[in-house]
Amino acid sequence: MAELAMIAFGGNALLRSGQTGSYSEQLANVENTCEQLYPLIERGYNIVIGHGNGPQVGNGLLRHEAGQKEYGLPAMPMDFCGSETQGSIAYMIETGMERVMRRHGLKRKVVSLITRVEVDADDSKFKNPTKPVGPYYTKEEAERLHSETGAIYREDPKGNGWRKVVASPVPLKINNIEIVRELAEKGNIVVTVGGGGIPVIDTPEGHKGVEAVIDKDLASSICANEIKADEFYILTDVPKVFINFRKANQKALDTITIAQAKEYLAQGQFTEGSMAPKVRAGILFVENGGKECVITEAGQLGNPSCGTRIIR
Amino acid sequence: MAELAMIAFGGNALLRSGQTGSYSEQLANVENTCEQLYPLIERGYNIVIGHGNGPQVGNGLLRHEAGQKEYGLPAMPMDFCGSETQGSIAYMIETGMERVMRRHGLKRKVVSLITRVEVDADDSKFKNPTKPVGPYYTKEEAERLHSETGAIYREDPKGNGWRKVVASPVPLKINNIEIVRELAEKGNIVVTVGGGGIPVIDTPEGHKGVEAVIDKDLASSICANEIKADEFYILTDVPKVFINFRKANQKALDTITIAQAKEYLAQGQFTEGSMAPKVRAGILFVENGGKECVITEAGQLGNPSCGTRIIR
Repeated sequence: MAELAMIAFGGNALLRSGQTGSYSEQLANVENTCEQLYPLIERGYNIVIGHGNGPQVGNGLLRHEAGQKEYGLPAMPMDFCGSETQGSIAYMIETGMERVMRRHGLKRKVVSLITRVEVDADDSKFKNPTKPVGPYYTKEEAERLHSETGAIYREDPKGNGWRKVVASPVPLKINNIEIVRELAEKGNIVVTVGGGGIPVIDTPEGHKGVEAVIDKDLASSICANEIKADEFYILTDVPKVFINFRKANQKALDTITIAQAKEYLAQGQFTEGSMAPKVRAGILFVENGGKECVITEAGQLGNPSCGTRIIR
Repeated sequence: MAELAMIAFGGNALLRSGQTGSYSEQLANVENTCEQLYPLIERGYNIVIGHGNGPQVGNGLLRHEAGQKEYGLPAMPMDFCGSETQGSIAYMIETGMERVMRRHGLKRKVVSLITRVEVDADDSKFKNPTKPVGPYYTKEEAERLHSETGAIYREDPKGNGWRKVVASPVPLKINNIEIVRELAEKGNIVVTVGGGGIPVIDTPEGHKGVEAVIDKDLASSICANEIKADEFYILTDVPKVFINFRKANQKALDTITIAQAKEYLAQGQFTEGSMAPKVRAGILFVENGGKECVITEAGQLGNPSCGTRIIR
């Protein structure tokens, strides 16, 4: 059987900082990213893609808020907006990936699943939500919204106003993961855990959406283990992971063990909210039985010794 | 092997006329519809669901327009908005269906696919688009938008202003239909062709989204044939199809042949934009090899002799 690779990339690979996020921009970015993934497809890998949705769901929340103001339409909660981005980003990835394969004369199916991811209702993160999402409000508006919905609002440290904050709970269980695995093993390129998955909690009546953000690298890591991926690629905007980043003694890491990675994390070598969660997701994959996690930039995938490799 | 049923229902089964379309309203409607489908699940059918998205994509277009006005975010085209509704409606169906099955002590997976549907770039409908979508504009705004985007705007006959009109081309090919069939034959409840599918045309470079609306009953009919469904259920808001509807000699139809159905269509017995396209979709299914098409309301599904049956 072909090797199976799980690939995670950020929503900002599709909607870049400084861009308006127009359809043509996002489609061009998607196609570019798909072209960069092509070397893995060419080497015969079976492939599962997990993607982020940060800028897209941010825009979605603003559109819902504007629709309420302008037309009195209900502004939907975060889980609903996340499901919208799973649809639209998967559609763009299917379009871009098909274009790339056609250019290279290859025919493989691309199939995208809506993916709910279970989190624990008692996850300690829910007690102290820290992830700011959606529009800025005045203090008065934030207080009114809090009393109406119970959502928590915090003042932006840069003075832009007040914003809703949501938790980033640990992903526990990816819905329909057996189907993802079966589809990928048949050679289909599978898109799943969009935006880290739609966060749901289990209740006696069934799963219920919650307003939260699941780290897409963490969700992809769990997905990679569950589908028994041989390799887990986390794409970012640097070719390798660095220690002493941006200092005179900066050093790119080629291959590191889990123990070394943990040591560097403890030293605070990796930025929180950026490289640190990627390294943690990589460690988790290898600890749970994965062979290796590669952290690199998409453009390097053609190079078999690309990136920083985390191994046992 | 279990019998396979394709079931199509409208977006208005989930967002009813007169409702604001709040999340709790839509979730309650979805769960109610899923409960009504349960008799088929209980009888052991394998099931594929195709759903509409009329009210939802309408709200989506308004939100995009409001987001542009309020925040300068790009207002995305119809295909993009359609892909968003595929994500959000599938998420609600998965949630509602799981709740219903848990209540009945049953465990089957529900899996939702993003679905592109190919239409012909030369479809004659593109020459004369008639389906009004999105917000109302003044004549001046409509003229400006037409000159900027090439989209066609027509004056609303009720005097509400000018609206974009799009075509409703014939669906030709449903993407990943073999996967839908395989998943359904394994007992998974599959959600596909949301909103009639995301309309795309084929180009030398790959498939490309177009602004159009595919009739969801027609797309579901083609889907039903491709997956070799035994029965095709089209859900509506009346228990049976009537001739001489709302006249003294009104008559509910139990079982009719294709020939009779065509005869009634020719007589103008069925309202265009409402029952007529459903009857046509049913005829198409049986003509292409399907056993029978049942047109009925969801609440009747527990009754084995429900609805109007179109047979060869």
